[in-house]
Amino acid sequence: MNQESDHPLLPEITACPARLKELAEPQLEQVAREIRELLCHLSEKRSVHFASNLGVVELAVALHSSLDFTKDRLVWDTGHQCYPHKILTGRFPEIESIRTLGGLMGYPNPEESPFDLFMTGHAGCSIGSALGLSLGDAILRPEEERHAFAVVGDGALASGVIFEALNLAGGLKHPITVILNDNKMSICGRVGGLGLQLDRLRLNPTYKKIKNAIRRAIDAVPSVGTSTGDIISRFKDSVKAGITGGMLFEEFGIRYIGPIDGHNIPLLRRYLTMVRRFREPALLHILTEKGHGYRDAELDPTRYHAPSPSLVGHHSDPPADGAETRRGKAASVAIPETRSARSKQDRTAPIPPAAEMLPNDSDPDMPGDHSFTHWARNAIYRLMKEDRRFCVLTAAMAQGTMLEPIRRLFPDRFFDVGICEANAVVTASGLAKAGMRPIVDIYSTFLQRAYDHLFQEVSLQNLPVIFMIDRAGVVGADGPTHHGVFDLAYLRPFPHFHVMAPADAREVEPMLRYAAAGNFPAAIRYPRTTASRLERIPAPIETGKAEILRRGTDGAVAVLGERAKTVLEVADELAALPEGERLDLEVINARFAKPLDTETLLAPLREGKFLLTVEEGVLAGGFGSALLEAASDAGVNTQKVRRLGIGDAYTPHGSRDELLRLLGLDKESLRNSVRKEISAK
Amino acid sequence: MNQESDHPLLPEITACPARLKELAEPQLEQVAREIRELLCHLSEKRSVHFASNLGVVELAVALHSSLDFTKDRLVWDTGHQCYPHKILTGRFPEIESIRTLGGLMGYPNPEESPFDLFMTGHAGCSIGSALGLSLGDAILRPEEERHAFAVVGDGALASGVIFEALNLAGGLKHPITVILNDNKMSICGRVGGLGLQLDRLRLNPTYKKIKNAIRRAIDAVPSVGTSTGDIISRFKDSVKAGITGGMLFEEFGIRYIGPIDGHNIPLLRRYLTMVRRFREPALLHILTEKGHGYRDAELDPTRYHAPSPSLVGHHSDPPADGAETRRGKAASVAIPETRSARSKQDRTAPIPPAAEMLPNDSDPDMPGDHSFTHWARNAIYRLMKEDRRFCVLTAAMAQGTMLEPIRRLFPDRFFDVGICEANAVVTASGLAKAGMRPIVDIYSTFLQRAYDHLFQEVSLQNLPVIFMIDRAGVVGADGPTHHGVFDLAYLRPFPHFHVMAPADAREVEPMLRYAAAGNFPAAIRYPRTTASRLERIPAPIETGKAEILRRGTDGAVAVLGERAKTVLEVADELAALPEGERLDLEVINARFAKPLDTETLLAPLREGKFLLTVEEGVLAGGFGSALLEAASDAGVNTQKVRRLGIGDAYTPHGSRDELLRLLGLDKESLRNSVRKEISAK
Repeated sequence: MNQESDHPLLPEITACPARLKELAEPQLEQVAREIRELLCHLSEKRSVHFASNLGVVELAVALHSSLDFTKDRLVWDTGHQCYPHKILTGRFPEIESIRTLGGLMGYPNPEESPFDLFMTGHAGCSIGSALGLSLGDAILRPEEERHAFAVVGDGALASGVIFEALNLAGGLKHPITVILNDNKMSICGRVGGLGLQLDRLRLNPTYKKIKNAIRRAIDAVPSVGTSTGDIISRFKDSVKAGITGGMLFEEFGIRYIGPIDGHNIPLLRRYLTMVRRFREPALLHILTEKGHGYRDAELDPTRYHAPSPSLVGHHSDPPADGAETRRGKAASVAIPETRSARSKQDRTAPIPPAAEMLPNDSDPDMPGDHSFTHWARNAIYRLMKEDRRFCVLTAAMAQGTMLEPIRRLFPDRFFDVGICEANAVVTASGLAKAGMRPIVDIYSTFLQRAYDHLFQEVSLQNLPVIFMIDRAGVVGADGPTHHGVFDLAYLRPFPHFHVMAPADAREVEPMLRYAAAGNFPAAIRYPRTTASRLERIPAPIETGKAEILRRGTDGAVAVLGERAKTVLEVADELAALPEGERLDLEVINARFAKPLDTETLLAPLREGKFLLTVEEGVLAGGFGSALLEAASDAGVNTQKVRRLGIGDAYTPHGSRDELLRLLGLDKESLRNSVRKEISAK
Repeated sequence: MNQESDHPLLPEITACPARLKELAEPQLEQVAREIRELLCHLSEKRSVHFASNLGVVELAVALHSSLDFTKDRLVWDTGHQCYPHKILTGRFPEIESIRTLGGLMGYPNPEESPFDLFMTGHAGCSIGSALGLSLGDAILRPEEERHAFAVVGDGALASGVIFEALNLAGGLKHPITVILNDNKMSICGRVGGLGLQLDRLRLNPTYKKIKNAIRRAIDAVPSVGTSTGDIISRFKDSVKAGITGGMLFEEFGIRYIGPIDGHNIPLLRRYLTMVRRFREPALLHILTEKGHGYRDAELDPTRYHAPSPSLVGHHSDPPADGAETRRGKAASVAIPETRSARSKQDRTAPIPPAAEMLPNDSDPDMPGDHSFTHWARNAIYRLMKEDRRFCVLTAAMAQGTMLEPIRRLFPDRFFDVGICEANAVVTASGLAKAGMRPIVDIYSTFLQRAYDHLFQEVSLQNLPVIFMIDRAGVVGADGPTHHGVFDLAYLRPFPHFHVMAPADAREVEPMLRYAAAGNFPAAIRYPRTTASRLERIPAPIETGKAEILRRGTDGAVAVLGERAKTVLEVADELAALPEGERLDLEVINARFAKPLDTETLLAPLREGKFLLTVEEGVLAGGFGSALLEAASDAGVNTQKVRRLGIGDAYTPHGSRDELLRLLGLDKESLRNSVRKEISAK
């Protein structure tokens, strides 16, 4: 056996994934080592999801070596933990292309492999998907007795849809297996009451020990004459400390097994083979370490969630200000701190004092390149410092939204609700109703989870909840599950909402202050990129007022959001052309998608000039669509309108620049679009 | 005391709600009787939510007599159970106007009273709202020590957002009280694993009895020499049978109290006063009877959920085919049947054999007026009979969607997931992935709960899930929380989706069959009304093809959905006018909101004629907006387009006809709109 361990096994498994099943245990250990080395190698080349994938290497090996997923079903919840799975299912040769345009996606992708069943980026859907798959299999191909597995992180456990799915599975008594990958980051452990139970379970290394504790308690019961009340309390405590974590699942009708060591391949294989045979829904609780096998990542998995290559390469440089940790499992990476858990965190996480973390150049008029996220955070900070009515809610995105210092400075007015966007919005509405001015700081794509609550709890009640919508637009390598491109279309139909997008760093805080001064729901959306500083004295933010950035007579471009800078550059270039070719373009910073500045935006059309609209979002129902509606209502001819944005297709993953080029929103494409309009009209 | 009980107390309480607190217990009982009589009286006059309100009379009296909600906070989940609350908070004089245009709303309404904090129509949000209110109160007015109460039905308990909120409340250890109003209809009891636990709890009339059972078990433990294994099993059983229902909540960090009799005012008052003093989150489990105090309604609460006046008046007539039970708490009224619960239901619910329930005239070419819901159900039935790949999912709306016979005929392919719209869509995606052709039959407004899953699990994966979107448009007396007016705007931006609306009864099944034959996500939306039968031989449904219902030369109306008939009537009237006034209108049945038949729809504009678009949905991003986008893309002048639909405001409650008139979508308004276009252009 040992002599075999010298030649690499991954190429062999790539040629034939079923080969994995023939390997003996030492060889499986070797496969795990090879995957781990490959992940480290990958991490040195580019920013990939690192620690979470190191944590599931053994699980992936155990799953694919003991079970047959050409028949059985495997759904990875929050799919960024799928790298080992991808490597083991024929994608070893392409793994270096991961998260690059045209390369492998950083999430499961049914187009890449039949082993990838769902493209999963939002947490919590795997149990429902697996259950659906399994119900369908039972109807269509009962003779095959296929089994469905969902691998769920403990972060996703706080998500409502998980409970809905557990309840349905338990009620149907349909055999599926949920693998709870409890990697001790336990976002819900810190966030919710539920997590405390998981923590208790975790302290007891095995279910057997818990049973023994109960046995001892029972043995200690004197036969007669004692206070039964005391005994009951003792029992309740044992039960609470032990079985109940599992009981939670048993309440839903789910059989609970565990917890077991998630890095022990033979043990995992035995348990997987066992649960595979169950005729009822079961949950297998495994304990893993994020970053397992990579010392630095084990010690600081947050930093190593999706580290910059330099971090893995040199093991020293801190991530740059802009290199915010991404979410997904960043879910289980942001370490939310509730009042009760704070002291614990102080002991474990070496976070510098908040004052040091808030940059000195927090004034956007000062030089220095920072992200929109940075300016949003600083603006929130200043509002909260000035007025105690302001509070901030986020949903397991405190790292990504750079809110950690605010958590530390204002622990009573900072709420990380876990991966519960719906409830974040509901709770915010309650806070607003109570007289607070809640700010919900959330990514565009995840706010979709709260669509119905944006409607009922906020818009319908006309409550002054402020939404700081981060990652609005294309987000880069995370791809289609994470692009935040629908928000303008989904917010615009809601009465009462004011919907804005800042053009540069200096509009973020004024927009937030405009919303803060108003008595209506407001949304401010901005992309995941550096915020520029346009050269002008910004006009104050007024309800439904656009800002003319550049006067011109040959036509106009109305831009909503960050593309303003690029459009201005195009206008300058066209104005600098020699006489004859020279073009004098008007550039309008729309600022509001709703209410719309119809006077300013329709003026070029009334004058018979062309009007290009530019937005980083879907065209169907978006900003340009709003302009067409306004023009139609005003009886203005729209033949000279051309809308640029995202068409009726999903945008792939790739770098932000690559994607903007693909969408025709980069400088060159914008220049060509302007020229085309000029020559056409 | 007894002499006082002869004069009515409600007028007195109306003049001064605080007066309730001064009443002795016999007088409180009298108040409850007066409310109950009033509810019966109301029910004889018009269709109101009846049984659920009868069930909470004592709870409302106990709440308002023992607590002070000028300070404390009270949120009614699924607010249609708010009538006794409204009567007790100054609205006794106006109660007869309930659910009529301009009258009281059938749900809590902050505009009516400061005692109504949230307009609640969708289930599951009250705990989050109450928590938010309470957190805000704690920050802003800590000295007042306000307490927040959420009254939740057992139906809402299956909703994910409930778990998200319980988890957050437990984690924060913030004192709020959840009153679980368990009225034995227990939709989740039938649907999910969780409900079985509630059922067990319910069998044990008091928490004390459970404790006693444990005491007895402990006392029975012999001191030495027995099999500890056996004892453990016995303990686990006791625990499971008893505490665990409460333990579920305790797992979330919520203190569990109950169950207690929800019709015993003194008992309720004692417990409410007790939990009010808790400094931790608590859940008070109360047992109530839907329809309590009204014998017929107690025996058949489903039928008496929102009975027709004739039903309450004469106690005999069955509800008409069109008089479908409404949802909200209809939630807890549809009695879902899982395979495991079927035999139980057969014993208890006297439902006629399915064959009898399926009408004979199931062919839409046959005469007979039926709702769109009826034709949709029949079409689903036929597809399911022909092909076992088809299955249907609904979310506690089996009554409203008329799917009960299908539940009985195809129990293995019928899934009522409870109030879990999100999970309905997720599970459907899994079914589709497994090769099934799931049909999700759901109300437009409740499908909003699944917005993010429509995106990620369906559109992004391009899975052939079919959505039968019922109650699309204005729904009548239920009002703004229930109007289904956003669906066109929220579905249109999703790639891959085909979005349709039938004009009449004869388009429902062809559209469903078109979707069934395709390999893409599809949505078919129709309003809550009778489906007409337009006089023509319908053209077959083809991808993105409209149908010209009437040729004409003076201008065109493009209508999406049920308003087609009214538009045709207008066209006929205008064509019948004397020479000179006579107008010859083209009427286009758009059929598709996506993909759009740009050729047919843009033709009138290309010919310089006016084009009115008519839709029963929001104008922002809706069907008319899609047409403007298409025209702009094609370079066609849109100055002669006028869009009719729902503007940027919420539509109140009232009858369907009243609301259509309010929105300018009734015959007279449509006629005037056409005339206005003619004279203007």
